[in-house]
Order: sequence, then C-alpha cells, then structure tokens
Amino acid sequence: MIAKIIIDKKREGRSLGSAEIREFVEGFTKGEIPDYQMSALAMAICCRGMTERETADLTEAMMNSGRVLSWDGLLTADKHSTGGVGDKLSLVIQPLVAACGVFVPSLTGRGLGLTGGTADKLETIPGYNASLSLEDFDRVVRSCGVSMTVQTDEITPADKKLYALRDVTGTVASIALITSSILSKKLAEGAGALIFDVKCGSGAFMKSREQAVELAMSLVAGAKASGRRAAALVTDMSTPLGRAVGNANEVAEAIQILKGSKDPLLKLVADLSLELAALMVSLSKGIALEQARAECEDRLSDMSAFARFEAMVSAHGGSLDSFLALLEKPVFRFRIQSMRSGYVSGIDAEKVARAALELGAGRQRQTDAIDPLAGVTLDVMRGDKVSVGTALATLQKSGDPNGLEHAAAELYKAFTVSSQAPAAADLILERID
Amino acid sequence: MIAKIIIDKKREGRSLGSAEIREFVEGFTKGEIPDYQMSALAMAICCRGMTERETADLTEAMMNSGRVLSWDGLLTADKHSTGGVGDKLSLVIQPLVAACGVFVPSLTGRGLGLTGGTADKLETIPGYNASLSLEDFDRVVRSCGVSMTVQTDEITPADKKLYALRDVTGTVASIALITSSILSKKLAEGAGALIFDVKCGSGAFMKSREQAVELAMSLVAGAKASGRRAAALVTDMSTPLGRAVGNANEVAEAIQILKGSKDPLLKLVADLSLELAALMVSLSKGIALEQARAECEDRLSDMSAFARFEAMVSAHGGSLDSFLALLEKPVFRFRIQSMRSGYVSGIDAEKVARAALELGAGRQRQTDAIDPLAGVTLDVMRGDKVSVGTALATLQKSGDPNGLEHAAAELYKAFTVSSQAPAAADLILERID
Repeated sequence: MIAKIIIDKKREGRSLGSAEIREFVEGFTKGEIPDYQMSALAMAICCRGMTERETADLTEAMMNSGRVLSWDGLLTADKHSTGGVGDKLSLVIQPLVAACGVFVPSLTGRGLGLTGGTADKLETIPGYNASLSLEDFDRVVRSCGVSMTVQTDEITPADKKLYALRDVTGTVASIALITSSILSKKLAEGAGALIFDVKCGSGAFMKSREQAVELAMSLVAGAKASGRRAAALVTDMSTPLGRAVGNANEVAEAIQILKGSKDPLLKLVADLSLELAALMVSLSKGIALEQARAECEDRLSDMSAFARFEAMVSAHGGSLDSFLALLEKPVFRFRIQSMRSGYVSGIDAEKVARAALELGAGRQRQTDAIDPLAGVTLDVMRGDKVSVGTALATLQKSGDPNGLEHAAAELYKAFTVSSQAPAAADLILERID
Repeated sequence: MIAKIIIDKKREGRSLGSAEIREFVEGFTKGEIPDYQMSALAMAICCRGMTERETADLTEAMMNSGRVLSWDGLLTADKHSTGGVGDKLSLVIQPLVAACGVFVPSLTGRGLGLTGGTADKLETIPGYNASLSLEDFDRVVRSCGVSMTVQTDEITPADKKLYALRDVTGTVASIALITSSILSKKLAEGAGALIFDVKCGSGAFMKSREQAVELAMSLVAGAKASGRRAAALVTDMSTPLGRAVGNANEVAEAIQILKGSKDPLLKLVADLSLELAALMVSLSKGIALEQARAECEDRLSDMSAFARFEAMVSAHGGSLDSFLALLEKPVFRFRIQSMRSGYVSGIDAEKVARAALELGAGRQRQTDAIDPLAGVTLDVMRGDKVSVGTALATLQKSGDPNGLEHAAAELYKAFTVSSQAPAAADLILERID
C-alpha cells in the first residue's frame, strides 16, 4: 500500500520524502516491492524528474543497499567515465594518480553493446584477475596504490537489480536515475574525491551537450551532497579517443601513453588523461590545478606511473610479458583505404564502435564471449590530409575471417573526407566544479 | 525488444502506431510481455497521455482480447455509470429501456471499496444468478429484452489483467486508460448505443467537473470511433442518489421507482433515471428526445417497465416474494437525529458511503462477504428544514450490533445543517453528444 502511495505522489509530480525513497529502495532490494511497482516508479521519475535532494536520497539509499568501503585516513580518489569509443583513459589515469600518492580504489564494469568495459580490457592481459574479493581489492589498493576490479554483488545490489529492470522497461533516460546509479557505486567505494568524465556525441550515451552538462552537474552536486570533493569534464565523443578501439589494442595503447609515446594520433587522448588525472590530484590534495598537472607530467616522464600499472597488473596475477606475446599472435586483418583525396572531416564514433562490436570486440548479449584481439585501429585522425589509397584504419579478429569484409564496409562509412580542412574542435567542452 | 521500443516512444511523448498498441496488448494478454513492462507503459501513458486515435486503438485491442458479442439486427443499448453512492439507476433504466423495445445486454460489475456493484445489489434477491454463462445471457436478453450479469472471464481478459496491475502501480488516473477499460467492456457487449453517466463530486472517482467532462468526451468519442451511437451526461455526485445506500435497500428503492412511487426524496433519482433512459431510447431508435421521454413515462406508468424487471429477475432464477420476506428480517437499527435546527445544506456522499461500508454493505477487500441488509437510509434530502430531534438517517446491519454506533457517529458528520437554505443545485451538469 505504501508503495502505491509513493508512486501516486511521483506521478502527480510531487517530491518524495527521504524516508519514502529509503523505504521504497529497501523494499525493492528485499523483493517485498515487486518489479512492476519499481518500473512504474522509475517511469514516473523519468517523466516527472527528481529534485537534487531527492536524487541525493535515492543515491544514498542505493549505496546503503550493500557494503560501503572505507579507507581510514588515506587520500583516495576515483574517476568515472560515462563511456566512450576507444576510452582507455582509466588505464592511464588511475596508475598516474596513484603515482602522485593518491590511493585509487576503482571498481569498474564490463562492456555491453557499444560500450566497452575497462575490466574486459584488463582481462586481455593473461592472468589478470578482474574479479577480486573486496578483501583482496583492499589489500591491492593499499599495497600498489591502485586496483581495478569488477564491482562484486556486495556493492549496491539495489542498483544491479534496478539497472536490469530499467534496461527492459524504457526507463534508462532519466538524469536522476542515471546519477543515482553511477554515484551510488562510486560512493560505496569510499573514495574522497570523484572526477566524472561525461561524454557527449554519437559515440556516447548522452547525445547532446545539454544533456551531458545536466548529468555532469547532477553528478557533481550529488557527490558534494555526500561530502566528497568532486568535479566533472564534459568531453566530446563524436570521434573515437586515440587510435585503438577494441580490448588488447586499447591496453597496448594505454601502455604506450604511460611510456610517454610521442605518436601524434595519441596526443589528444594523452592530454585528456593528463587533465583528468591533474583534476583528481588537485581536488584530492587540495593543491592548484597547475601544480597538480606538473606533478602528473613528472610522474609520467619518470616512468613511475607505468611502474604503478606494472605493479597493479602483477598484484592482480597478470603478466605483461605474456600480454606482449599475445599481441604477436596471428590474426585476420583488413585495411581500409580512402577512395578520395581531401581532409578527414569526421570519424563517426558510433559507426567505429559498431564495426568493432561486429568483429567480436564487444558483447551483443551479457553472456557473449569477447575476442580479446578483435578491434579497429585508426591510421588517421580528424583533420588529416588523405589521398586516394591512404590507409584509414585496420580491422582485425581471431578465429576466422568471417565478417571481416562486412565490418570493413561498415567501418568505411564512419569516415567523411571533405575538400576543406575541418575547423578545429575542442575535446573538453565544459568543466563543472 | 519491441516492447522496450514502444515504451521508449511513449516516454518521449510520441504517439504509438495502431500495430504497436495491438502487439503490446496481445503480448501482455498472452503473458509474453511481463507486468513490469506493462506497468512502465501504463505510467508513461499516465504522464504523456494518448491521442483520441491511440485511445481508440487501445480500446479496440482490449476488446479483441476476448469474446465480442453480436446481436444480429436487434436494436440494442446499454448504460454505464462511473459509479456513485446510492446509484441504483441501472436497476430502473435497463428494464425501462427494454420496455420501450430496445434490447439491453448489460454486463455489470461487483463493488469494491466505496463503489457499489449492481451485481451485488441484484444478488440480494434470493435465487438471482448474476453469474450467467454468455450463452444464458444471450438467451435472457432475447427472451426478456434485458439481462444484467457479471462479465465473464471471456470478456476483455486484457482489461481484467491490466486493471489489477494499474490498481497496485499508481496508474489508475489516466483518461486514456480509464476510457479503454470502460469502453472495451461495453463494446465487447455488442450494444449499438451507449450512454455514459459520468459522475463527479466527493462520492465519485472523478472529483472535479473538468476531469469528468474530459472523461465523458473521451468515452463518447471512443464509442463513436467504433461505430456506436453514444452520448454522456456529467452528473453531480456530491450528495447520495435517493434515500437508500446499501444493497437490498437500493433494490427495494428501485422497485418503488419502477412502480411509480411519489416519495419526494426519490424524485431526483427518478428524474435522472428517466432522462438517461430517454437518451438511450432516443439514440437507439433515432427519435427525438422528447418523444423518447414520453414513451419512457408511458412504460413506467403502465407498469411494463416493472414487468420487464420481474421477468428478468425470474429468468435469472430470482424470487421477488422471497426478497420482500428478506426485507422483513430482523436487523439492528440506529437512527441519527439532528442536533440543531436549520436547513440540510449538504449530505457528503463519500462519508455516507464510508458509513455504509463500515456497516458491511461493501467490500474492503475483493474476498470480503457483503451483508445484504446492511446500509443507510436517508430521511431527509438536501434543502430540507430540520429541527433538533428530526430524523436524518437510519443505519442498519445484520448479525450483531457491533460497529453500529461508530458508523452512526461517522454518518452524522456527513450532514451539514445551516441557518440558511442552500441554493438549488443541478443534478445534470453537462450533456455531451
């Protein structure tokens, strides 16, 4: 009865009380409130919205549905990305921040559909265990300064249950629900500073800049309401990040950046990684952004960021030597070339992601297996001058060559070649703090 | 997958296609679309609304979820009331219309909460079977010109399933969903003309006149879209209809009206019955309302309307003699009196209904049994002059006297006695055709 009254209230566009939100989430988690009532409430929230206070209450209720970690007096921070194509930034940022003396307890996810998962990428490193218990996670964070593992069922079970339901009931698109889903998990990790990379554009969940800014503001406000230091960047995701879109190839690219690669195609992704890492360090230590950026640059160039990455991989049971051997394994490749001359004025992130998914780099269904070596590697970036025959990108997959040509034809459609050079576009669109 | 796309579309406020609506209802009826998706769509409909065309499509899909009756070339009509306190009008109108030569196949419902059910009232007549098979229903309609029985599970199963879900998911309050629920059942009956009595006020589901008018317009438009003749009256339900609120006492009052009672407290309810019956006959036969009204008056005064009622009761296995004997059975009574002198300026329908429910005249839960003799009988009407000690109403119940005094104290609160006579109020607020 109480559930119905709460649903009625939200349908009428009224604000729910803190206790009402808490009781609803608790009832749903325990199974006392059935899915059909939760989906009705979720839809009412999609249609009527939630205030900042309601969103904070919902986030807290979801956080408290499971274990909440704490790190005593340690300086801790984490970064969350809403997900992009070729988004291997976490692999660079988290060890870099750890190298600056800030502990990074990072619970991460697996990919589904067009969204890649950091855990899937790390698992291409032979031996890497991305399913640590929370006790082992604690131990690795304290010993290496950083650990990246899949969140266990003990963390925000309410979110896990609600997310599965939202996915099939058309109730994903709500700033309040997205905020509470992302934030409850990050708050449960216990990190003191949180940085959000909210992406917008064809390859992102948020297609428009306005939506992305709204979500970024909601995330930062929610994190601050829970007593954390927080900031967000809204970044462009109309073009893939870096050269590699896949799994093993993205890890390889992250290692290149950690080792200080000067590849011009990696400059943008390296710069964005540095900026996000500097924000984390600055917020966490309470120092100026410029000072934090200089510190991050030093930790990259003295290889201590890469050393943290190596230590983390090793602590998770992974072997970088075996990983390098894996990259040498024979695969089926297809290179696509430009059929006209001009300037690359667009590389559609969503189309690149679809080609990579088709090759086996992602999951269509949750139970699908991933081909670790499948993916796309770009040979040009937006603004590059190309001629007929210039290589645009290489596709690759293991097992058999089936589907390679079809994916290549699809990938070709991602490229727009124009007679005029495109105007420069900013990668960082807004900063919210 | 298709279900999710349809829900998304409605959440975004877009119109659903006819095929989309049909497939969703079919999938839900078969159990292929789970409750949690249906409740999300119902909530999206509550929040975003539906066009007249969408509502008509939803109604048709619900109608086609079960059997649809047909009456060959017979002249047929039915009346639907959204439910009021003391609303025994169907018991008068349906036999009266039948006496005018229009067949009345009337599938009706049971009461729940404050809403009384015509079937419950008829079942207080010993022997009356209000659960006929559709075959027996057909036979009684053709032989007596009228039959009133509970709709079977063969009629609009989608509505039955959806209504139960809406009831627990806060998705009752939608003009489109209410329209399709009411109309699909009435269309499945196959009657050629439909009259709607949409009530508004404290004792009705629609509390405001605006909502009631909106529903009335939606019902008439929907019925016409399905090729039926249709009209609606929006009538006041701030005061109970007639003297009796209960079950057996309401049947007794309907019989009094069918027999031409001149009780001044029954004039309003008799007049409204006549008006609704005349509308049905006028629409059905395509004759002027005045002519139809004169015909109805004749059929009342020559007792042929009562004869139709007797015939219907008998065809359903009921005995009016036994019913009269039942009314003489000993019961516990409590009479409330005015404690001040002045004019009765208000008799709150909802409060009268709550008192009757408390006495056992209704169901709190679907499985509750009804006390056929329990109820309230008013001794005054709005506008009457009263003194200290004037009888206002009598409460009665069977079994034991427990709760009688408490219900009496509650009932007393329904009466407002003022020093000035209240302004006259219209019972019929709007006519929509």
